[in-house]
Amino acid sequence: MTKMIMHGCNGRMGKVIIDLVKEDNDIEVVAGVDAYGDNNYDFPVYRSLNECSTEADVIVDFSNASAVDGLLDYCTAKNVPVVLCSTGLSEEQLKKVKEASTKVAVLKSANMSVGVNALIKVLKEVSPMFAAAGFDIEIVEKHHNQKLDSPSGTAIALADSINESLNNEMDYVYDRSTRREKRPQKEIGISAVRGGTIVGDHDVIFAGHDEVVTLSHRAYSRAIFGKGAIQAAKFLSGKQAGLYDMSDVLA
Amino acid sequence: MTKMIMHGCNGRMGKVIIDLVKEDNDIEVVAGVDAYGDNNYDFPVYRSLNECSTEADVIVDFSNASAVDGLLDYCTAKNVPVVLCSTGLSEEQLKKVKEASTKVAVLKSANMSVGVNALIKVLKEVSPMFAAAGFDIEIVEKHHNQKLDSPSGTAIALADSINESLNNEMDYVYDRSTRREKRPQKEIGISAVRGGTIVGDHDVIFAGHDEVVTLSHRAYSRAIFGKGAIQAAKFLSGKQAGLYDMSDVLA
Amino acid sequence: MTKMIMHGCNGRMGKVIIDLVKEDNDIEVVAGVDAYGDNNYDFPVYRSLNECSTEADVIVDFSNASAVDGLLDYCTAKNVPVVLCSTGLSEEQLKKVKEASTKVAVLKSANMSVGVNALIKVLKEVSPMFAAAGFDIEIVEKHHNQKLDSPSGTAIALADSINESLNNEMDYVYDRSTRREKRPQKEIGISAVRGGTIVGDHDVIFAGHDEVVTLSHRAYSRAIFGKGAIQAAKFLSGKQAGLYDMSDVLA
Amino acid sequence: MTKMIMHGCNGRMGKVIIDLVKEDNDIEVVAGVDAYGDNNYDFPVYRSLNECSTEADVIVDFSNASAVDGLLDYCTAKNVPVVLCSTGLSEEQLKKVKEASTKVAVLKSANMSVGVNALIKVLKEVSPMFAAAGFDIEIVEKHHNQKLDSPSGTAIALADSINESLNNEMDYVYDRSTRREKRPQKEIGISAVRGGTIVGDHDVIFAGHDEVVTLSHRAYSRAIFGKGAIQAAKFLSGKQAGLYDMSDVLA
Repeated sequence: MTKMIMHGCNGRMGKVIIDLVKEDNDIEVVAGVDAYGDNNYDFPVYRSLNECSTEADVIVDFSNASAVDGLLDYCTAKNVPVVLCSTGLSEEQLKKVKEASTKVAVLKSANMSVGVNALIKVLKEVSPMFAAAGFDIEIVEKHHNQKLDSPSGTAIALADSINESLNNEMDYVYDRSTRREKRPQKEIGISAVRGGTIVGDHDVIFAGHDEVVTLSHRAYSRAIFGKGAIQAAKFLSGKQAGLYDMSDVLA
Repeated sequence: MTKMIMHGCNGRMGKVIIDLVKEDNDIEVVAGVDAYGDNNYDFPVYRSLNECSTEADVIVDFSNASAVDGLLDYCTAKNVPVVLCSTGLSEEQLKKVKEASTKVAVLKSANMSVGVNALIKVLKEVSPMFAAAGFDIEIVEKHHNQKLDSPSGTAIALADSINESLNNEMDYVYDRSTRREKRPQKEIGISAVRGGTIVGDHDVIFAGHDEVVTLSHRAYSRAIFGKGAIQAAKFLSGKQAGLYDMSDVLA
Repeated sequence: MTKMIMHGCNGRMGKVIIDLVKEDNDIEVVAGVDAYGDNNYDFPVYRSLNECSTEADVIVDFSNASAVDGLLDYCTAKNVPVVLCSTGLSEEQLKKVKEASTKVAVLKSANMSVGVNALIKVLKEVSPMFAAAGFDIEIVEKHHNQKLDSPSGTAIALADSINESLNNEMDYVYDRSTRREKRPQKEIGISAVRGGTIVGDHDVIFAGHDEVVTLSHRAYSRAIFGKGAIQAAKFLSGKQAGLYDMSDVLA
Repeated sequence: MTKMIMHGCNGRMGKVIIDLVKEDNDIEVVAGVDAYGDNNYDFPVYRSLNECSTEADVIVDFSNASAVDGLLDYCTAKNVPVVLCSTGLSEEQLKKVKEASTKVAVLKSANMSVGVNALIKVLKEVSPMFAAAGFDIEIVEKHHNQKLDSPSGTAIALADSINESLNNEMDYVYDRSTRREKRPQKEIGISAVRGGTIVGDHDVIFAGHDEVVTLSHRAYSRAIFGKGAIQAAKFLSGKQAGLYDMSDVLA
């Protein structure tokens, strides 16, 4: 039985994960950490990892960027693997993640779902072929009307995986209304739609001469991100130092 | 048999229409007008309407904005109805269109297809209901990589028909990547995708609480615009002065 | 404050509705009825309406066909309006529904969501126009892998509303693999996709010459059906005898 | 310059290919073969290959099953590679194709487009991963209302490539309206939509728990099949005996 600490246990994703773990016989939450909110759980909840005295095999993090430095220090010092799902990290923090991964197992992914990570894997393989055949590449993502940032981190991660496979030659374009010109070939257009409670749709469009191939992912609930995080936690427990991502879990 | 003049007979849409008319027993092209290109037709082709001596029941125009003033003068003077499909008219030209329509029948539409005009009609009816129920409204359009402008005239026409039905209270937003905020309610987001040879896709998205309704139109060839123009020409021939649009033809 | 009885309070939709009512200040659940399950509520729960002594302004029903006869008898006798959401009623039961509606207000709909009912309304208007223009009509629905019946009741309701607007001349076709022929015009093809946990997608496709218009609805959770039922309950309370449907609520 | 014979030069696809070859500097049509129609070409046209005296590097075939036996005999005897695009071959003919390929280069594919063949390649890789993660697999194809057979050969080819990657354990299901049961896991549902002039849409749907991945291909014209055939012809010219398919061309 894998023992996990839920870092950010009172957040929306923290609650989702704690509920999902209850139905899983191979993993249990032994402690929670959150700077805010009450303790309504049957495990100890600490205000910060500094106060945490519970031993664990792995930490799952869905907190926020400001809590990540303390998290990495703790994991390195105690040698506890960490599934890092907070987004919006600074360049400096990304560097710190890399350093930490030389001493402890760290798994970091922009999106924890099986489906999105399958797409990322596929994109790396097919993008060079489509680009060679003269297809243009575009991404359309759709999210709920409460989302602050645009385009989504997942859309950027999809674009990055395409771009890497094309020698990083592509420019990302978010708005074509302000210019008047034919579409340059070395572009990835990224459009963001916002409305209602859409959990997260992502379409990657390869448009060629008289044919279009679209690879799309649709999320129906946040549970898929929680499930992926739990799968990652079980995978990471006991692993040696290194920087992992979801493609390692799904391999 | 309706006698029509094809204004812009050497352009891409002019050629499409001339080919389609050949298969139609109720209408024939009696003359063409184009400032450029050769005369490869079995009817007279003039450099401008000023030189045109052929009588006709209707003119179909797919030229460009710069030729529209002369076109309107001719139609008013000779009392010939005109199907006006050139886009990108100036405010002044739009005013001149209105004036001309007090003296002669003028039909003007951003998009000549049956499908898009059906959508426009539907949007006027359903938009107030969806807006009242708290749904957000977004438009995504997709066109080929040679298209210069963005978003498409048809996308704007769709947004305008929604906006009119909502007391013109909506702002159009083409790019959300430069701001960081929740989506304001009184917005219509319009995203433009460019790639390959896509003839023209338009999705109108109504996103509510846990449900999304999408009304979409996909064009597979430019013939649909030509067919609509011919249908409009037959409708307009013999009509009295007034400003018409495709909804009158389809009613 | 509208007082409602939840008929089928221990079923999946019953629970969804009871939760939603808690957040609504204009309506409250005063009693539940269910032949099965415990009473975990803060209102009385009866095994059947016969045992029910609580007075109410309206009954919302999400039980099953076998309980509908007793329900209609109760509503007629006590003159309590009823929102009838159980499906799979027999011809005889449908007749009984009609009879009951001469004495008490009855609202019956195949799908309680705002979006699907908006679609139904639109379909009645646009189908004759598309049919006249030679467009073929097809429906594709997608649901989760636990659904027993196929195609969905909602797909049939969509087809029925199209068919009514076309003088009931259309045949419904569920499988074309067993014949070898061109598509007859007077058909509505209905395809059913089953997989995962899909809540309910419905696409109505109008396919013409080189253009396709698609009207689609996607549900992200069952809450939308609950919300519609509550809206209907508030609407129906105090109404005179008659047979209503969701289009009356949304008008 | 590759010299090709167009087998089936008066058919719809034959004409498309001859037009496309004119714009290609690396390949030319040196003769045509067709049992029917006139010779409107600037190259010799024969009623059958038996009468053909023109030498060529490769034959492209878009005729029909009845002409395939003679074609294979000719190619084997004369040692001319052949791109075989006729469909509906019998088991016996498929066997003959295999035998011929031991003596001469034969390329056979259900669909010649870059996009569909890219999809087939991707499906072989991702299907086992999705199946292992409990996703259900469904295919929806859409074609014009003149198509006689259903489902399309391409849909079957997509299903076959999935099935091969899953140890051929999957059953294909074309109609669920006649049974009443939960969806069995080891199924691929295949739905066929028919309407208007749709050239060919194919969606492969992986539906999991609260997420859906869709890989889709849309054809806008038959030119894409012609282009693929020409690409294949240039690839096959000069190749040694063997059975090839489009994935060899695109590799």
